[in-house]
Amino acid sequence: MARNLGDIARRLNGQLDGDPTVEIHGLAGLFDARAGDLSFVGELRYVPYVARSRASALIVGLDFPTASIPLVRVAKPALAFESLVDWFRPERTTPIAGISPQASVAASAVIADGAVVHAHASIGEHAHLGASTIVHAGVRIGAHVRVGRDCVLHANVVLQDHVRLGDRVVVHSGTVVGCDGFGYRPGKAGLEKLEHIGAVEIGDDVEIGACVTIDRARFGRTTIGRGTKIDNLVQIAHNVQIGEHCVIAAQTGISGSTTIGDGCVFGGQAATAGHVRIGRRVTAAARAGLTKDVQDGAVMFGIYAGPVHEKRREEAALRKLPELLKRVRELEKKLGIADSGGVAEDG
Amino acid sequence: MARNLGDIARRLNGQLDGDPTVEIHGLAGLFDARAGDLSFVGELRYVPYVARSRASALIVGLDFPTASIPLVRVAKPALAFESLVDWFRPERTTPIAGISPQASVAASAVIADGAVVHAHASIGEHAHLGASTIVHAGVRIGAHVRVGRDCVLHANVVLQDHVRLGDRVVVHSGTVVGCDGFGYRPGKAGLEKLEHIGAVEIGDDVEIGACVTIDRARFGRTTIGRGTKIDNLVQIAHNVQIGEHCVIAAQTGISGSTTIGDGCVFGGQAATAGHVRIGRRVTAAARAGLTKDVQDGAVMFGIYAGPVHEKRREEAALRKLPELLKRVRELEKKLGIADSGGVAEDG
Amino acid sequence: MARNLGDIARRLNGQLDGDPTVEIHGLAGLFDARAGDLSFVGELRYVPYVARSRASALIVGLDFPTASIPLVRVAKPALAFESLVDWFRPERTTPIAGISPQASVAASAVIADGAVVHAHASIGEHAHLGASTIVHAGVRIGAHVRVGRDCVLHANVVLQDHVRLGDRVVVHSGTVVGCDGFGYRPGKAGLEKLEHIGAVEIGDDVEIGACVTIDRARFGRTTIGRGTKIDNLVQIAHNVQIGEHCVIAAQTGISGSTTIGDGCVFGGQAATAGHVRIGRRVTAAARAGLTKDVQDGAVMFGIYAGPVHEKRREEAALRKLPELLKRVRELEKKLGIADSGGVAEDG
Repeated sequence: MARNLGDIARRLNGQLDGDPTVEIHGLAGLFDARAGDLSFVGELRYVPYVARSRASALIVGLDFPTASIPLVRVAKPALAFESLVDWFRPERTTPIAGISPQASVAASAVIADGAVVHAHASIGEHAHLGASTIVHAGVRIGAHVRVGRDCVLHANVVLQDHVRLGDRVVVHSGTVVGCDGFGYRPGKAGLEKLEHIGAVEIGDDVEIGACVTIDRARFGRTTIGRGTKIDNLVQIAHNVQIGEHCVIAAQTGISGSTTIGDGCVFGGQAATAGHVRIGRRVTAAARAGLTKDVQDGAVMFGIYAGPVHEKRREEAALRKLPELLKRVRELEKKLGIADSGGVAEDG
Repeated sequence: MARNLGDIARRLNGQLDGDPTVEIHGLAGLFDARAGDLSFVGELRYVPYVARSRASALIVGLDFPTASIPLVRVAKPALAFESLVDWFRPERTTPIAGISPQASVAASAVIADGAVVHAHASIGEHAHLGASTIVHAGVRIGAHVRVGRDCVLHANVVLQDHVRLGDRVVVHSGTVVGCDGFGYRPGKAGLEKLEHIGAVEIGDDVEIGACVTIDRARFGRTTIGRGTKIDNLVQIAHNVQIGEHCVIAAQTGISGSTTIGDGCVFGGQAATAGHVRIGRRVTAAARAGLTKDVQDGAVMFGIYAGPVHEKRREEAALRKLPELLKRVRELEKKLGIADSGGVAEDG
Repeated sequence: MARNLGDIARRLNGQLDGDPTVEIHGLAGLFDARAGDLSFVGELRYVPYVARSRASALIVGLDFPTASIPLVRVAKPALAFESLVDWFRPERTTPIAGISPQASVAASAVIADGAVVHAHASIGEHAHLGASTIVHAGVRIGAHVRVGRDCVLHANVVLQDHVRLGDRVVVHSGTVVGCDGFGYRPGKAGLEKLEHIGAVEIGDDVEIGACVTIDRARFGRTTIGRGTKIDNLVQIAHNVQIGEHCVIAAQTGISGSTTIGDGCVFGGQAATAGHVRIGRRVTAAARAGLTKDVQDGAVMFGIYAGPVHEKRREEAALRKLPELLKRVRELEKKLGIADSGGVAEDG
């Protein structure tokens, strides 16, 4: 897979400062590069880190200073770097074709031509798999599940009964779609389970990370709109409705029956309360907790979130609070007011 | 599975406003309903949303106004709606009986009559499965595990060696019970693992969500009391003791050796510190962080949680803090006090 | 497995206060002990809890008061208790040897002598397993994966293509290593996936908990340094570089391209922003959110974390804020200032 630096410079139509015979074995970022790796510097503020990088060569901009390692100078270093992905992509094994004899496929399941089912996967009764869909080892597909075409279900994904996926959906390992929602009512002998007879529907071009949990609806359906991307370890509760083209970062939790409009972005470890209505193109910062309805286009910040400008002002004010306590005590002294109510200021 | 609206009204002993021949194919909430769905309105505050719903008909209260879609009027709409679940439950495949020849069952395992073991499941040495318990595909049951009767272990659940489950326990997919606790001590070459030789014991009628992790005890046992319900992606550390009939919402983390009394409720993304003792019937709000012992019946709120009335007062006061900074500056000006200590107020 | 108390006292070279024929069946903590269990009291502050414990006997210090249950007195109770682990370790089944005929092993995979592959596991093309490594049921090992010697991969672990593990690495059930990083760029029809062609490299003596997700790098590699320990449900994003001998507690999230130096400790539910550089021996308290670079040795606290002494001072001041609002109103009254700006103080 090695390429020499001369070939790389020619391919990028770049200007080489250094030895063209240097061999490059892989691509890496400036900080994680090792000997044999080619990296890049897209912005001049990273120049001070170059001396510490272990990369064997760099793709840099035309105005980059000289360095102790070989440089390939181009107009747009980041784009040039990315264009090399095809050359350096690690070897992929020829994919297995067809249905593994070690898979378990129900007699009534329908598997389109070109779909692949790996060993130790299970396909339930009346399930449908679309053309060219790949089901990796250990995937569990329940009864009456429908998976579109060109989907990839990575190893050990679980789709419970009646879940529906559109086309080109990717689900990463360990993710569970269609588990029961979390709902009980008080009964004589303790909590009684509310039966969840709804489904989960996932639109085209959705990607779902690893170890994500998506609950089925009590009635009706939990839905994830077309083009939405969900990161690892996210919780989506029963009856949630997520719009199209949303981005939800890792470890976020969306509580039951909440609706989220198109084009929303959630940072990591964010959350919503249940039954709230989030508009379109809302941004929730990392760890934002949306406890009430949110209007279209709002940018929300804070554990009990509000508009970002308000919450940041509160956060800045909080940093001054210990000093403020002292200042108020000074004012009270000046006005002859004794320490009020036995509240000590310096605990 | 379709039913017409006349039949539904008769079954509910309700009053039909609209065409009795309308066909209903499923049940759904007001917001996620589609054409063909029957929904309901339990409270009049939802009336404004009816116009936007795509439901084909509604079950409503006797005092509900007229609407552009057919209505079935009853005294208790929510209860009436739920009573239709049996009619509209999606088709379930006849369950597989017995032990799949594609399962792997140790010779010394004991499997009661009526228990079901699906393909690709593994049952370890000396494991016991109770009557009518269902073990889905890809479940891993370790050695010396005991599972009671009428339990359901969903696909890809893992129960490590020596874990014990009571009767009627439900565990959702991807959950791991009995992994080692997280404990190390400094050694010569780095951290040395503390061996965890304890077990996990789970009482009758417990339900555990998907992708939950429950660690085994260092010694003794981690326990989950009878009737307790645990949502998805919850972490229960080693030696935790959870009482009976508790409810723990998604993404909550219970740290090592903490005890939780009967009847406690934890909101989502809550947490406890290690080694704390939480009383009975304690409520921890969503995201509450319980860092100290908590008395019976307390309602706790806040990231570093306190009693809800105190913490909500602090939160309300925080919203006024930026304004307060200005007011104190005004007071200082009036008293001729210069800007104190170089602290700028408007950053 | 039962031992009598006389034998235990002799083995510990301790002084027995009580009946030597009492039978002990297991070890447990003071709070989770049951009849038949031996427990210990390491510190005198736990003496008040002894009366409530259900343990059948206790190992205690030489200065411990008398009690109503048998005691074994020794100089160091905690150490003595731990030394009994070998005696009371629950029975382990003789491990299976070799490669199960129910596993699926690619023809080009190389499996060293003494390695064990359980039923329903899959080993991909060109994968290498080191000597004495144990691959439990349902583990998925992708193509070109390298696993060192004496590793343990618990049931249903997933290692995607090109992941590398050092020697003596332990990975608990449900964990996914090498899933794609979460990266997209806007395209004509929605978000376009950034291809992730990098790897994940995990050093010797690393232990990773259950249901952890570790993303592969965009280019180069995500790395976890030698001796680092990671708890359950942790998220490690693409291109993260974690140093050696770090400890990361449950439900923590490390965002993309962040670097963490050697010897850092993260409490539970902590997080870092992306692209930040955390020094060596940094301590992040539980729930700390590290949003900026952090210097060596810093102790960080708070949701939007700062140095612990500052943040704890702010937290203490916040508890006085409702009172402060009243005090400022008093000052304003005294100076004849009307309620400022319509801000009500007691909401």
